[in-house]
Amino acid sequence: MVLEHAVLNVRGGQEAEFEGAFATAKAIIAASPGFQSLRLGRCLEHEGRYVLLVEWRDLDAHVTGFRGSPRYEEWRRLLHHFYEPFPVVEHYEDVATIP
Amino acid sequence: MVLEHAVLNVRGGQEAEFEGAFATAKAIIAASPGFQSLRLGRCLEHEGRYVLLVEWRDLDAHVTGFRGSPRYEEWRRLLHHFYEPFPVVEHYEDVATIP
Repeated sequence: MVLEHAVLNVRGGQEAEFEGAFATAKAIIAASPGFQSLRLGRCLEHEGRYVLLVEWRDLDAHVTGFRGSPRYEEWRRLLHHFYEPFPVVEHYEDVATIP
Repeated sequence: MVLEHAVLNVRGGQEAEFEGAFATAKAIIAASPGFQSLRLGRCLEHEGRYVLLVEWRDLDAHVTGFRGSPRYEEWRRLLHHFYEPFPVVEHYEDVATIP
């Protein structure tokens, strides 16, 4: 399992619109082969900041599978215009988990 | 539930020592009232970078409960000297989850 991680900063005043678009977009990523789970969190300290965490079967499922698919074009169209600056996406492998 | 989130940058060459110290420290945080789950991930793109994700019952369980306890002194002693720069800790509430 690989965890996709991105902190998303949404343009001021567009938070509700972004959350609405994400409610549509999440089904697109969830239908991609190798998708395992997703969480979008809203920051308590900074308005307009979110964290996106997506579990994938492996790095390839995200980087080649999802990003190389027509689904990604739809994901981009729905979401990318909300971000300022454009987010840095990284991947993490587990070192420790409880439970 | 509130998600504690921090990206941790560990001093060069101290990754194995940090992971060993974390293996001890994780039991300290897990014993704190209101702790629900923990994940430490190692970044695939940047050596020495980690993400720490801790689920708490609520914000108070982390900020007042854990940070105000003697357990936190031990956590600090074990881990804080590895970080450069010192991490920014934020909290997130769920907007969307799958499944």
